[in-house]
Amino acid sequence: MATENIPYKIYLTEEEMPKAWYNLRSAMKNKPAPLLNPGTHQPMKAEELAPVFCDELIKQELDNDTEYFPIPEEILNFYKMYRPSPLVRAYCLEKELGTPAKIYYKFEGNNTSGSHKLNSAIAQAYYAKKQGLKGVTTETGAGQWGTAFSMACSYFKLDCKVFMVKVSYEQKPFRREVMRTYGADVTPSPSMTTNIGKKILADHPGTTGSLGCAISEAVEVATSTPGYRYVLGSVLNQVLLHQSIIGLETQAALDKYGIKPDIVIGCAGGGSNLGGLIAPFMRDKINGKLDCRIVAVEPASCPSLTRGKYAYDFCDTGMVCPLAKMYTLGSGFIPAPNHAGGLRYHGMSSVLSQLYDDGLMEATSVPQVKVFEAAEQFARVEGILPAPESSHAIRVAIDEALKCKETGEEKTIVFGLTGTGYFDLVAYQKFHDGLMEDYIPTDEELKVGLDKLPVID
Amino acid sequence: MATENIPYKIYLTEEEMPKAWYNLRSAMKNKPAPLLNPGTHQPMKAEELAPVFCDELIKQELDNDTEYFPIPEEILNFYKMYRPSPLVRAYCLEKELGTPAKIYYKFEGNNTSGSHKLNSAIAQAYYAKKQGLKGVTTETGAGQWGTAFSMACSYFKLDCKVFMVKVSYEQKPFRREVMRTYGADVTPSPSMTTNIGKKILADHPGTTGSLGCAISEAVEVATSTPGYRYVLGSVLNQVLLHQSIIGLETQAALDKYGIKPDIVIGCAGGGSNLGGLIAPFMRDKINGKLDCRIVAVEPASCPSLTRGKYAYDFCDTGMVCPLAKMYTLGSGFIPAPNHAGGLRYHGMSSVLSQLYDDGLMEATSVPQVKVFEAAEQFARVEGILPAPESSHAIRVAIDEALKCKETGEEKTIVFGLTGTGYFDLVAYQKFHDGLMEDYIPTDEELKVGLDKLPVID
Repeated sequence: MATENIPYKIYLTEEEMPKAWYNLRSAMKNKPAPLLNPGTHQPMKAEELAPVFCDELIKQELDNDTEYFPIPEEILNFYKMYRPSPLVRAYCLEKELGTPAKIYYKFEGNNTSGSHKLNSAIAQAYYAKKQGLKGVTTETGAGQWGTAFSMACSYFKLDCKVFMVKVSYEQKPFRREVMRTYGADVTPSPSMTTNIGKKILADHPGTTGSLGCAISEAVEVATSTPGYRYVLGSVLNQVLLHQSIIGLETQAALDKYGIKPDIVIGCAGGGSNLGGLIAPFMRDKINGKLDCRIVAVEPASCPSLTRGKYAYDFCDTGMVCPLAKMYTLGSGFIPAPNHAGGLRYHGMSSVLSQLYDDGLMEATSVPQVKVFEAAEQFARVEGILPAPESSHAIRVAIDEALKCKETGEEKTIVFGLTGTGYFDLVAYQKFHDGLMEDYIPTDEELKVGLDKLPVID
Repeated sequence: MATENIPYKIYLTEEEMPKAWYNLRSAMKNKPAPLLNPGTHQPMKAEELAPVFCDELIKQELDNDTEYFPIPEEILNFYKMYRPSPLVRAYCLEKELGTPAKIYYKFEGNNTSGSHKLNSAIAQAYYAKKQGLKGVTTETGAGQWGTAFSMACSYFKLDCKVFMVKVSYEQKPFRREVMRTYGADVTPSPSMTTNIGKKILADHPGTTGSLGCAISEAVEVATSTPGYRYVLGSVLNQVLLHQSIIGLETQAALDKYGIKPDIVIGCAGGGSNLGGLIAPFMRDKINGKLDCRIVAVEPASCPSLTRGKYAYDFCDTGMVCPLAKMYTLGSGFIPAPNHAGGLRYHGMSSVLSQLYDDGLMEATSVPQVKVFEAAEQFARVEGILPAPESSHAIRVAIDEALKCKETGEEKTIVFGLTGTGYFDLVAYQKFHDGLMEDYIPTDEELKVGLDKLPVID
C-alpha cells in the first residue's frame, strides 16, 4: 500500500530530534495579552508569580520574544526514552475512506502517561529540581496530566502532591493507581487537608469537586509549604512552548519527504497539544512561507472558541489565579459531562485565542457521539485505541478527507493523535450500548457564564 | 548518558524488518514431540486437525524442517503499523542499579492489544481470511490475546467470537469493552450458548469459569458452525513461529551495533513470547556461534518448568484437545490467583520443553511480590508501566544486573518486555496497599495434578 515510498511510520533519529523548543509568540505580530493581577488589574510581574511558579518557568511564561529555548540535556535524555514519536501515514484509514487525501497523524500516546502531557511535565519537574525545590503540587481532572507529572517527579525524585477532582478519583481508580506507582501522593479534592477544601466542604457538603477547586487546593499547599511550587499542564504559555516539540518533530518528519500540509488539525481544551503541534506551521503561515489551514476542534459541549467571548477572565473557578485574556465561556461555566475530560475547560490559551482572533486559525466544534463514531472507525483500521480528546481531531480529519473524496483533491491532512483511551472505556461502553448523549448548551445556558465575566478597565 | 553512541532506542527501518518468520524447530537436533490424538495416542495428522484449525496454520504447526516461512505482504503491511518495535537500552535502570551491565529490552507493548500477542493474531486472522472463512472463535483469560485477536479480525473483516473466562469478564469490563470496540462478540464462559457450557453450568452452578472451559466452548462453536475455525494464542508451534519476529528484530538491532548478548531473559506462560524472543539466539547457540545463557522465568505459583514433569498431557482442562508432550503440572492443576494471568498455564510449549530438557535453556521461578517490586522500580526510572507477566523478566534482569555489580562484569543482558499493565491496576493497587500475597504450592499440592497425568504407552 505504501505507494509513494513513504513509510507507514516516519521516525526521526535521536540526532534529528529538535534540540530547542520553539516559542511561537516570537512570530506573532499581535502578542498574546499579559496575565493580570486579579486585585490591581496590572500585568503580573515575575516577582508576583514567584511564590507560586518556578523561577525558570516564569521567565519562559513572560518571554514573548526569544525564538528558541535550548532543551536542557537532562530533559533531552528523558525525551529519548519515548521520543521522537512517530508520524504515521494513515494508509489503512485512507483506504477505508476511499479518499485521495493523504492523512498523517502524530502519535503522542506511546508513553505510560498515555498522552502528550509528559512533554511539559518532565520540563516543569526538571526546572523545579534545578531550583532545589523539595516538591511540587498540581491538580488533575481526567488524570493524564497527573499521571505524566507523577512520572516526571519520580524520575527527578521530587515529592509530588496531586489534587484529583473527587469524582474522577472515585470513577477512575486506575488512574490514581498509576500515579501511586510513580510515588505520587494523590488526594481527592475537595479535601480536609487545606483551608479552601474545608471551606468548600462546609459550604457544599457532598460535592464531588471541580478542576477549579483542585487548582485552589494545589496552589494553597504550594504557597504554604516551604520548598514547594505549583505547576499546571495546559493553558499557560510555558506549556505551549514545551509542547512545540510535537510540531517541530512533525515538520522535520514531513520535510524528510518534502511534504507540505494543506490542513493541520488538533483538538483543543486548554490548548497545550494544539499550540505545540501547530507552532512551526503557524510561524511559516505568519511569515508567508506556508499556505495551510489550521483547525482547532473543540467539543460542542464546551465551545470556548466557537461560542465564547474574547475577554479577560479567571483561569480557575475559585478565582484565585491571575486573569488571562482568552476566548472563554466564563469561569462559572460548568460543562456538561462530556467524556473528553481533557477538553472540559472554560477558556483557551491566550496564544491560541489571539491567533484565532487574528483570523490565522479556524475553529469548529463537534458533538461527542460523532466523535466516538470516528474513534471506533479509526481504531478498527489503524489499530490504535484513541483517547476521546484526540478523537475530536480524528472526526474532523475524516470529514475533511471525505470532502476530498467528493472533490477529488489530494490534500495532505495532518492531525495530532494526542493519546490513548485505555482509561476511557466507560465512555466507549456507553457508546457501544447506545447510551451516549450529546450535550449542546443553549444560548441561555451560555449566557449564565458569559454574563459574569470580570470587568477590566 | 548515551556513552557508547548506542541510542536509547534502536529502531529498524521498514526495509530492515524481517521478511520471513524463523522456525526454530529446524535447528533443533531433538525435535519437539508431536501432538497425539487423545483417543488413539497416535500423532495427529493434518486431516484430523482440519476441522478445528486453518489449513495453512496446520502446515506450519506440523513442519519441523522448513527454516523460514515468508511473511505474506498483507501481514507485513499490518506489522508496519506498530512494528518494528523498539529495542531500548535501559540507561536509566542501569544508572539506578549502579551496575556495569548493559541492559536492553525489546518492548512489545506499543500497540492497542498492549502485548506481543498481536504478532500471531494478525497472522492467524490472515490465514483464516485467505481460506475463505466467515469467522473464528477463540478464548481469552487475562484478555490480551482476545484483544489482539479482535483487532486482527476487525482488520480483515472476519467475525470474531471470544469466550472470556467469566471471572475475567466480570472483573475486567474494560478488556471486554476494547474487544467490542473492535467488533468482537464476547461471551462470558461458561455460557448457555454451547452444549458443553450448559453441561458445566448444570454440574457446577455459579462457577466463574476457567481457561479450559472457555477453550472447550470455543472449539465446540468452531467445529459446529459452517465457515468457522478455532485459534489459540500460545503454546502451539505455529504461534512461536509467528512470534519469532520479536527475536529476529532484536538480533538485527543488536547486530547494527555489533552487540552479542550474554543473557537472554523472557517470561514464560505457554511460551509464545519466550519462544519468539530466543529463536535466532537459540539457533546460534545450537550451532555453536553464540555463547549465551537463555533464561525462562515463570511464576512461583505456576512452576511448570522448574517443578513440573516432562510428559504427555492434555492442553486444556476439559481434555478435548490433542495431547502435547511438555513440562506440565497436570491439566487438573488450578494455579493460585497470581496476578500475571497470562502465565497461569499448567504446561509449556513443546518446543521450549524440549530445549529445556536438552539443557539448552535455564528456568527459574519468582514470587509475585518480588515481581511487583521490580515492576515499580522499572516503571519509575524507565517510564513504562509493565504488565505483571513482563515484570517476571524484569525481576530476573535486575537480579542478574545486580550480580554484575558485585562481580564488576559488564555483561549484556537482553530481556523481553512483552506488554503494558494498563489493565492490571487492581494488582498494582493490592501491591501498593501491602495486600499482595505470594502463592507457592507445596509438593503435596503439586502432586494432585502430577499424579493424574495421562498414561501414554
